[in-house]
Amino acid sequence: MTKILIIGAGRSATSLIDYMLRNSIEFKWKITVADVDQKIAEEKIHGHANGTAISFNISDADKRRSLIKQHDFIISMLPAFMHSDVARDCVEFGRHMATASYVSAEMKVLDAEAKQKGLLLLNECGLDPGLDHASGMKLIDEIKEKGGEIVSFKSFCGGLVAPDSNDNPWGYKFSWNPRNVVLAGQGTAQYLDGGLMKFIPYNRLFTQTDTIEIEPYGKFDAYANRDSIGYIDVYGLFSINTMLRGTLRQEGYCKAWNVFIKLGLTDDTSKITHAGELTFTSLIDSFLPNTKESVKDKLKKLMKDEWDEQTEVMLDYLELFDEKKITLNEGSPAQLLQHLLEEKWKLKENDKDMIVMQHQFEYRLPTSDKIQKLNSSLAVVGQDQHHTAMALTVGLPLAITVKNFLTKKFKSAGITIPVTKEIYTPLLAELEEYGIVFNEQIIT
Amino acid sequence: MTKILIIGAGRSATSLIDYMLRNSIEFKWKITVADVDQKIAEEKIHGHANGTAISFNISDADKRRSLIKQHDFIISMLPAFMHSDVARDCVEFGRHMATASYVSAEMKVLDAEAKQKGLLLLNECGLDPGLDHASGMKLIDEIKEKGGEIVSFKSFCGGLVAPDSNDNPWGYKFSWNPRNVVLAGQGTAQYLDGGLMKFIPYNRLFTQTDTIEIEPYGKFDAYANRDSIGYIDVYGLFSINTMLRGTLRQEGYCKAWNVFIKLGLTDDTSKITHAGELTFTSLIDSFLPNTKESVKDKLKKLMKDEWDEQTEVMLDYLELFDEKKITLNEGSPAQLLQHLLEEKWKLKENDKDMIVMQHQFEYRLPTSDKIQKLNSSLAVVGQDQHHTAMALTVGLPLAITVKNFLTKKFKSAGITIPVTKEIYTPLLAELEEYGIVFNEQIIT
Repeated sequence: MTKILIIGAGRSATSLIDYMLRNSIEFKWKITVADVDQKIAEEKIHGHANGTAISFNISDADKRRSLIKQHDFIISMLPAFMHSDVARDCVEFGRHMATASYVSAEMKVLDAEAKQKGLLLLNECGLDPGLDHASGMKLIDEIKEKGGEIVSFKSFCGGLVAPDSNDNPWGYKFSWNPRNVVLAGQGTAQYLDGGLMKFIPYNRLFTQTDTIEIEPYGKFDAYANRDSIGYIDVYGLFSINTMLRGTLRQEGYCKAWNVFIKLGLTDDTSKITHAGELTFTSLIDSFLPNTKESVKDKLKKLMKDEWDEQTEVMLDYLELFDEKKITLNEGSPAQLLQHLLEEKWKLKENDKDMIVMQHQFEYRLPTSDKIQKLNSSLAVVGQDQHHTAMALTVGLPLAITVKNFLTKKFKSAGITIPVTKEIYTPLLAELEEYGIVFNEQIIT
Repeated sequence: MTKILIIGAGRSATSLIDYMLRNSIEFKWKITVADVDQKIAEEKIHGHANGTAISFNISDADKRRSLIKQHDFIISMLPAFMHSDVARDCVEFGRHMATASYVSAEMKVLDAEAKQKGLLLLNECGLDPGLDHASGMKLIDEIKEKGGEIVSFKSFCGGLVAPDSNDNPWGYKFSWNPRNVVLAGQGTAQYLDGGLMKFIPYNRLFTQTDTIEIEPYGKFDAYANRDSIGYIDVYGLFSINTMLRGTLRQEGYCKAWNVFIKLGLTDDTSKITHAGELTFTSLIDSFLPNTKESVKDKLKKLMKDEWDEQTEVMLDYLELFDEKKITLNEGSPAQLLQHLLEEKWKLKENDKDMIVMQHQFEYRLPTSDKIQKLNSSLAVVGQDQHHTAMALTVGLPLAITVKNFLTKKFKSAGITIPVTKEIYTPLLAELEEYGIVFNEQIIT
């Protein structure tokens, strides 16, 4: 039997673990699910004969190394910064590995040795990155096979709340790591626009947004991801003029989020040590001048035209001006904000999340000088707050691709992402069985 | 003989090394000056009988540990982030240590062991931090001895260019680590204003400035330092309402620097890989929208009322709109900006720098309800581009305090900063011999 170790059994691992267990009989897999909290691991296995739940702390190096040695294939569902120890052990002991996360610098260092040893280091094989690569490359290859030349490729993705469960003015609830949402965009976003490299610093990222329409869900804000440029080579788009990857939020979200950035509430590098004595109103006041006006009036004055009625409704919803107590004793501004948002943006029992994705292509065919436009869109609604669209669309691409590797549908060694036909074709075909189907539309 | 090791012989170590050598005969000191570049170490020693120059790479742990073992007192003039290895070795081998830098988290960890072993860990004993602590505490103690209650303490310091050498519209040339100048203020500044904690995020730091006057040099901009709050306890100012530490620049500097922040040019977390193909004009254009206007017009439109004629003169001086080639192949926006500024803000042969400092006190005496105001100001002009006011005011406080410790004028173990009378009184007295004299002025 093939021994598979899944490290990390949090919400985003649910669909992955289900899939692996479901297929374990046919393909003779023994699945070990390891989590710091053994109970969570056991819940995810729900007594399956081929599953074993164990308690495991990633920082226990001896146990980590011994566990990895005992398995043939390791899937890490840990937060991204924790993959590197696992990856080093996998390469040392000759084990294959898979993650849904971006290829990190630490992973790149291991590429040569993994290739030499014939080990798979599958990365960027979740939703975004992952499904975006697979579905985008399918269209890129189709256009290229017709002799087409792609001049513009924009690709957007967002994890949001389903319309039926959308009962807050932000149109947002956490279906993913809240910390990543609060810190999103720090640094400088880089993309290509009309043949020119463009940069957006964090302090302007949420003011320079696009508006994207995905029927029947309406309009969304899109802010630029940090790196769009690196994918020009990866996708083989060498003559492209415009290349942008972005994140989708409900319309109006970005304007309101920009208030937090300008205020300073998303800073994670400073510690506020007396937070327990503060309310969110007094915390905001701390970031504003010492004048007699109300906190809201001072904030409006600071924001000038970067404020509107919808912004006010969204901030009011968070009780920011109601002297709501902060219940953390200390933390960075970003941690205090996260603490509030985890309460206000919680997926409730029976709430459904939704992921949306849209690729926008502009290309020229050899038969005509005219620019052709093609949009390809996806929306997936979750089942409930455990079986989320996020967990499904992150976990299934990873699980299916691991299965296709183990069943020899493709071969690869070293760092691999789902951009090749032999990986994305069976992946996209199987995802259709789960209702994950892109809607392609020629724009005229 | 007492064996003293000075690590780092850069420009800021000049006055320190001179002082230690000058006093080495009387006090029987053998001085070793260690630098990555042996030539630089030799220049600083200029053949003094009690001095030895050696080549030394801090990352060579064996050599570092062996060197530290061979000496009795270690002075680290390395960049701040490099002190911790030295400090760990000093505590392990039972050696005293001194730096001019802020007390770091790594240093705090060593405090208990150093105290137990009776080892001095002198920190914050340069200019700012250092001379500001000593001169501020002298006034605080004087006011307290009169029964006074201090309600407000603001303290400002800046390393600038002397009026005679001020031939650029920024009023600034580098007398200190350029990287620190370009990255200054990132994070959140914290201070106390009228009894209330106040925070300023980096994106607004250079717009929320004070104006400070120091005669006869005129007006200066002051932006808040990152941490003013931590010094309330250190200075024993428990009933204070307003506590602010700030950095001084020529008037107008902050408004112009704010353009770089808003543009995104001070970000150090992203890499621009094709910088060698760009001009500074096209780099700036990369941070601006794709429209037909000139780069300067787009920038003015972005800045709105955060731009004035002086700003334009200052930016023009840097040739930002003249298609000047970038001569680095790659780097973060901050590194590319630093590269330009190192050319434009270079201290030339015979240029003199200047350091300015001002403490502003408001206090009540037991004899009156009226608020008393006292300013204490210092300006020191350097000799030339090697013997700078910066090197003098950083190096002398450290050198004098080390001498006073070695000659048993004070005793201390563990982390020590120059805030106690037994340290600051002889320090300030000896500094007066070098013309470093504060001008105290009652404000009416």
